[in-house]
Amino acid sequence: MSLNKALTLYVAHFLDELVQAGVKNIVISPGSRSTPIAMLAAEHPDLKIWLQVDERSAAFFALGMAKASREPVAIVCTSGTAVANYMPAVVEAKESQVPLIVLTADRPHELRDIGAPQAIDQINFFGKQVKWFVEMAIPEDRQEMLRYSRTVAARAVAVCQMSPSGPVHLNFPFREPLVPIIEDDSIWKEGLDERRPFVNVTPPTWQANDELLEQLASKLLSIERGLIVCGPYDRPEFAETAVSLGEKLGFPVLADPLSQLRAGRHSKDIVIDSYDAFLRDEYIAERLKPEVVIRFGAMPVSKFLFLYLKNNPSIEQIIIDGEGLWRDPTLLAAEVIYADPLYFAKKLGSLLNKKIERNGHQFTNSWLESWITADRIAGETLYSVGKEEPDFEGRVVIELADCLPEQAVLFVGNSMPIRDVDSFFLSTDRNIRIMCNRGANGIDGTISTALGASTTAWPLVLLVGDLTFFHDLNGLLAAKLHELNATIVVVNNEGGGIFSFLPQSAHPKNFELLFGTPLGLDFSHAVKMYGGRFTRINRWNDLRNEITTSLASGGLNVIEIRTDRYLNVEKHRRIWNLANEKIKQYLQE
Amino acid sequence: MSLNKALTLYVAHFLDELVQAGVKNIVISPGSRSTPIAMLAAEHPDLKIWLQVDERSAAFFALGMAKASREPVAIVCTSGTAVANYMPAVVEAKESQVPLIVLTADRPHELRDIGAPQAIDQINFFGKQVKWFVEMAIPEDRQEMLRYSRTVAARAVAVCQMSPSGPVHLNFPFREPLVPIIEDDSIWKEGLDERRPFVNVTPPTWQANDELLEQLASKLLSIERGLIVCGPYDRPEFAETAVSLGEKLGFPVLADPLSQLRAGRHSKDIVIDSYDAFLRDEYIAERLKPEVVIRFGAMPVSKFLFLYLKNNPSIEQIIIDGEGLWRDPTLLAAEVIYADPLYFAKKLGSLLNKKIERNGHQFTNSWLESWITADRIAGETLYSVGKEEPDFEGRVVIELADCLPEQAVLFVGNSMPIRDVDSFFLSTDRNIRIMCNRGANGIDGTISTALGASTTAWPLVLLVGDLTFFHDLNGLLAAKLHELNATIVVVNNEGGGIFSFLPQSAHPKNFELLFGTPLGLDFSHAVKMYGGRFTRINRWNDLRNEITTSLASGGLNVIEIRTDRYLNVEKHRRIWNLANEKIKQYLQE
Repeated sequence: MSLNKALTLYVAHFLDELVQAGVKNIVISPGSRSTPIAMLAAEHPDLKIWLQVDERSAAFFALGMAKASREPVAIVCTSGTAVANYMPAVVEAKESQVPLIVLTADRPHELRDIGAPQAIDQINFFGKQVKWFVEMAIPEDRQEMLRYSRTVAARAVAVCQMSPSGPVHLNFPFREPLVPIIEDDSIWKEGLDERRPFVNVTPPTWQANDELLEQLASKLLSIERGLIVCGPYDRPEFAETAVSLGEKLGFPVLADPLSQLRAGRHSKDIVIDSYDAFLRDEYIAERLKPEVVIRFGAMPVSKFLFLYLKNNPSIEQIIIDGEGLWRDPTLLAAEVIYADPLYFAKKLGSLLNKKIERNGHQFTNSWLESWITADRIAGETLYSVGKEEPDFEGRVVIELADCLPEQAVLFVGNSMPIRDVDSFFLSTDRNIRIMCNRGANGIDGTISTALGASTTAWPLVLLVGDLTFFHDLNGLLAAKLHELNATIVVVNNEGGGIFSFLPQSAHPKNFELLFGTPLGLDFSHAVKMYGGRFTRINRWNDLRNEITTSLASGGLNVIEIRTDRYLNVEKHRRIWNLANEKIKQYLQE
Repeated sequence: MSLNKALTLYVAHFLDELVQAGVKNIVISPGSRSTPIAMLAAEHPDLKIWLQVDERSAAFFALGMAKASREPVAIVCTSGTAVANYMPAVVEAKESQVPLIVLTADRPHELRDIGAPQAIDQINFFGKQVKWFVEMAIPEDRQEMLRYSRTVAARAVAVCQMSPSGPVHLNFPFREPLVPIIEDDSIWKEGLDERRPFVNVTPPTWQANDELLEQLASKLLSIERGLIVCGPYDRPEFAETAVSLGEKLGFPVLADPLSQLRAGRHSKDIVIDSYDAFLRDEYIAERLKPEVVIRFGAMPVSKFLFLYLKNNPSIEQIIIDGEGLWRDPTLLAAEVIYADPLYFAKKLGSLLNKKIERNGHQFTNSWLESWITADRIAGETLYSVGKEEPDFEGRVVIELADCLPEQAVLFVGNSMPIRDVDSFFLSTDRNIRIMCNRGANGIDGTISTALGASTTAWPLVLLVGDLTFFHDLNGLLAAKLHELNATIVVVNNEGGGIFSFLPQSAHPKNFELLFGTPLGLDFSHAVKMYGGRFTRINRWNDLRNEITTSLASGGLNVIEIRTDRYLNVEKHRRIWNLANEKIKQYLQE
């Protein structure tokens, strides 16, 4: 019995310190070796547990919760390939800096690499995909070991949140017997004094020094043709701050859909949202070429913004990176400043205030006006033509943007949906948060991530293509088990729509086999199995009503709209051309 | 255009050498970066391509093909989390020594770790889970680089098949443009002389030396109480050889269901298949305690055989390992002999022939007779009681064993099904191959592995529980896309049946939540979506007919039978007790 007691206290102290350090949720996949963590987690009064059988979906579900709540989430599974199923979400967490605490149960040392069942090499299993790996000690209830257990927990929560935030992996060797002894609430403190949390950790704030900021402020005020580019970055207060900075500098603010600058109460006068449409035109791109670009967040989704930066080496790119990474695929950065973007933008803005008064700087200039006008023309054309167009995937985004209510979350699949959102989700004063797994841009785990996000945000709409929907069908189980509310809009073009935009499409032989990959699946069956409501839209004019109805009702709702990949490409190209012709006319006036 | 030409020839020579070295199949998941490999693979006249969208299922599908065909299979996917989805099958391939050639497309060096889309760190991505990793050179069509490309291909095929066989990973950095130039068949040889294959590789055979074999033969002939234990091992000719060795030594041959000794034309007089039932009885285990055990293959499935070996340190265990591993979770091995099991058993047998003539050794002894009789009593009881019992999962195995035709493959899920097959699949003269993912014993990827196996074996029946069926539902897509024939028998006990056999079941609080995990899914919907036929068995007496009908028809057939986890445990225990009481009576006579 003393073995169980030691196991119980060691794991109980670990979990309790996780909770004290701010972890509120743990996603559990069933298994035997992980019994001590699962059973104790279920008993902790302040830890909410979520079950998911498929560990791949479980990890993405946790990722979604962590992204939406901006708080670390723990996951736990048994030994063996269960651990391997965590890999996709761990990679995405690493690439998108999401704090995930991966707990894996393992055989003890004497049962490793000797053919014992379900034993694989879990030491450093995730390699460079995690920030920190700890092979935990065998459970003991000596004071020192309980301090150790608490200390690792506190540190894990801190490490996964420090820049660059990301996943950590703790591997627990457990010996049998595996069932903990849970008699009463004393297990959360027994054996150690009552300090809870045992240790508080304060992470640093990355700040640029005053001298650098002064110099930069003075330099920027002397420049007319400047841009602020806001890539994917999800931080409260950042939208207002970035826009205010742009206003003070007289620089247009290019807002990626994942920058959270397109939606909300802040001023959007200088927010540019249609650059992906008009920067694809060489003439316009040349006319709107800046001297300097200040970039925040990850590289934006838009391929044409990327090419515009890459093809103009004379643009001085100043990259503000709060994660200590190197997010410059143009390989043209002139300055990389490692600093917290929010603090940096605020402080730089405050320095400009002073300068402005001194210099009497004017913020209405032809540079800013050209951008604002081009963006207005593009936006109006995309919207007015797109919203009437049948068989056009961009229209799905327009309808969504029009009818999503205040506080909604729009979770977007990779491949075509995020690109359509980039093109067709225009600025709005409603608070709508747009999310996407944009770390590694995978089509996997999307349903699970969105459903994980739905636990802290409502109403949530997920927009995905059919391949992405298929890839994580198992993720729908969470909606059933946990009675979640979500609307999923599936744009079903029978395969990989993005390939029709790529050079592969010029080679018809084997194209459908290798790239188009039509699956021919009637998803209504799957949705029914998971207890959801499935609606197939037959008339494009019904789409908006159907979304609105679904948002008002609870539970899982899947709305499918069928499109044609070939028609869709043509319509995209036609609408972009239409907008750009009008802009060129304006610029040539 | 010369970039495309270099890319084309480099990849064409690589693929052609794979084919020349024996690779016949490649499983492709759609993606852009992997375009050169996918498009060229589709053109190779001797390479069969198989599409699967979900990379996790794709890799397991390839694993199943490789296992069933005993030949290496290649898989290819694009960069990013696609690679991560291969991890579970790669782990299983490593742990079960299956030759898998993992090809991943990657961004070139200048686009890595700088925020380019879909770029993750793929160098050594699978860590210790693969045997060999190669970061390929950037494609060039200089002679040296085409020789390099062919050499790596030939070596990859050799390495993945040499002991211990397992997965290898080749990571291909590809620059745009990605579309190869395929004009005619000259691409398979252009730029190099016409040697195809470019290089032949001959792997070694691991043989024990004659002196050791002579000594061992003479020692074994002096021992009466010996056993041969055959664990999971799937090799033609091995069954006859092992049985012949046992006959010459007068040692019973304990045959794991995955040893392939229970089914086939070879003599089964001394093959013991019910030891899992009777070794759980302490009295019987003590009475049937050997002096020496010769073990082939991995550790058998049976927990009670394991405990019998572990609890008797005086048993001299001689382990013949053809993979260079250390498969002895008892930690009691007296001898580990690294040698090819088939050659070893043949050679040892041939030495015994001589000795026998010289010594006039008698092979009918009371030791052998006790084992054979105990096994016969157990088998008869399990069969006769089990086959009449409703609500009993063991009966599903009995019915399957009775009606599977010649040349059938029975693919078995982990957790309860493989244990039930161990208990209830008794010896038969029909050639039936029994397969299972017994490397890491995961419940993941089982449908895909079985469907992969079905491409080379017919008829195939997969026996799984509901959690395992759920875990790889996406795997069913392969049956639809490739029009495969398979019968899947789902034992649906609404959750994790194995936990009812474990100590966790004594703790009812949270048991259903954490371990039972009932999903409440009506699988008929999913099966319908994939174009399969779904049958739910309501009367146990209909089970056999339904299986027989299904085997005769083509396509995907899913047969579900519902059981009760609690009743099932009780029935198992009662039947084992019944058999063991009879055996004790016999032994006490």
